Amino acid sequence: MTQQQAHGSVRPGGRTARTRAAVLEAARERLGAGQYAELTVEGLAARAGVHPSTIRRRWGSVHGVVLDLFDHVAGEVRIPDTGSLHEDLRLLAEGIVTLYTSAQHRNTLFRMVAAATAHPEGARTVRDFFAARTRQVSGMVRHAAARGEIPAGTDVLAVVEAVSAPIYYRLLVSRQPLEPGVARRTAAAAYHAARAGAFT
Amino acid sequence: MTQQQAHGSVRPGGRTARTRAAVLEAARERLGAGQYAELTVEGLAARAGVHPSTIRRRWGSVHGVVLDLFDHVAGEVRIPDTGSLHEDLRLLAEGIVTLYTSAQHRNTLFRMVAAATAHPEGARTVRDFFAARTRQVSGMVRHAAARGEIPAGTDVLAVVEAVSAPIYYRLLVSRQPLEPGVARRTAAAAYHAARAGAFT
Repeated sequence: MTQQQAHGSVRPGGRTARTRAAVLEAARERLGAGQYAELTVEGLAARAGVHPSTIRRRWGSVHGVVLDLFDHVAGEVRIPDTGSLHEDLRLLAEGIVTLYTSAQHRNTLFRMVAAATAHPEGARTVRDFFAARTRQVSGMVRHAAARGEIPAGTDVLAVVEAVSAPIYYRLLVSRQPLEPGVARRTAAAAYHAARAGAFT
Repeated sequence: MTQQQAHGSVRPGGRTARTRAAVLEAARERLGAGQYAELTVEGLAARAGVHPSTIRRRWGSVHGVVLDLFDHVAGEVRIPDTGSLHEDLRLLAEGIVTLYTSAQHRNTLFRMVAAATAHPEGARTVRDFFAARTRQVSGMVRHAAARGEIPAGTDVLAVVEAVSAPIYYRLLVSRQPLEPGVARRTAAAAYHAARAGAFT
């Protein structure tokens, strides 16, 4: 029970946060059940106990809700900026590996990737999310280039792709465990490749 | 029409090859329709126009048929051994990129990855296939280590993972196009990372 409820008054911020939590949880549940194609604003609203107009006003559409769910999940991975690119990449890779030790987060990823292979709208959601997230994370690589740690003209998005890809490859393709060495190794690989100019 | 049919006689090799083609095509069709969970030996046999016992004898199970379909598709990617690891990795990456410019092959991958997220048997098939394929391809990396091109003690499977992962990441996760620079870049990255000892 939240403090707001205990006091019998609902502050706008509290209600907004609870509405968001309920709608994202509804989206996560439906995705988890493999029902991306059946997601509708009305269905999410009914499950979350809110009015459809609330969802339309805040998220615009199912696409907006799912993007926000992904943002919420990704928010668990801190974007480091330690002043050392190798260390930043290692912390990022460890954050992604840790994220997917959660069966719930792994399941959300699996369902969404599966939906994206079958539905153009699902593909758009996944593409938009990873494009935005990659841009967010790329700050650490831009800073490293500005410090002269990696060559000027490095494709910063390619470095983020290089450090992330082996983790997703293990989850989705080779289906190998995310053993402790994976984060260390993929960070070292992306770092040395960037230093050597592989991404210029 | 094959020469064997034209002559009115069927050599065992010819019939075997046609049976394999028909069964693999049946598996590809059912997978393409997103029906991995509904695949049965009887269903494949009916679609391919062969007896179920023929499939059981040759492939053992649906698992065996799907593994053989993957092997058949992967056979289009030549495993190079030029004497230069960088060149080998570049040719391999180009081969994988070229493979997935085929909408049919891309669709088979998509459906199988989606099936693997939902069915333990699908997951086993995908894992077994990529494990075997990675071992096959890793010869080029072992040879490079033997030549002294990369450090002794390099994890050869990790190098194969590093060169492949960004291509699958683009197909399945970020859903970015496989533009011409991707193969060159991922090969250079894996090569320089291996040289620098990132995979030891």
